[in-house]
Amino acid sequence: MSKAIILFGHGARNPDWAQPFHRIRASMERQQPGVLIELGFLELMRPTLDEAIDGLVARGANEISIVPIFMAAGSHIKKDLPLMVGSALDRHPDLAVEIAAPVGEADYVIDAMAKYALN
Amino acid sequence: MSKAIILFGHGARNPDWAQPFHRIRASMERQQPGVLIELGFLELMRPTLDEAIDGLVARGANEISIVPIFMAAGSHIKKDLPLMVGSALDRHPDLAVEIAAPVGEADYVIDAMAKYALN
Repeated sequence: MSKAIILFGHGARNPDWAQPFHRIRASMERQQPGVLIELGFLELMRPTLDEAIDGLVARGANEISIVPIFMAAGSHIKKDLPLMVGSALDRHPDLAVEIAAPVGEADYVIDAMAKYALN
Repeated sequence: MSKAIILFGHGARNPDWAQPFHRIRASMERQQPGVLIELGFLELMRPTLDEAIDGLVARGANEISIVPIFMAAGSHIKKDLPLMVGSALDRHPDLAVEIAAPVGEADYVIDAMAKYALN
């Protein structure tokens, strides 16, 4: 039994766009060494969410928490993501997947963004 | 001489999508009462960035800091936003506008998102 976390992002054409995602992963690894983390993108960047899930299952994960690194839940989170997760569960019937609320909805993330905007 | 801050967001069809932006503004007002803040959206939501700028100027602002509430700087930040700011400066020649780095690039925002993703 092994748990993993996927940071789910939108993706963009410019490779620099992924930098904050790599920084979030690095910060998580500092806060909790040994945690199994993968990035997974909706479009335009690799690995895709499908590739991230399949790769983690291949490494032994049977529980995956998907954390949307989005400001808020729009149609990508409410419609596209559940469809992608449904398809992954068809491929991996023993996998458990949890979809978290978007990171932009967490109180202390809100407060950190407010602090930044004031400076 | 009066300073103001605009929280610049993408916008979406669903009105719920704006909730985190209202929460960031409320958190800023708690942290620094009296600060002049407006939301301004790229598309699909009101006020637009233009409307936010014009409204703040009408209220006496002559310095505006625009803080992109985006995870990272993609083409909306690198291309669309400077064009919109250029057009606003044509309308308001005495206005000073600063464009901040996207909120998702700030260290403590990264750390807060990492903490959230671990829980």
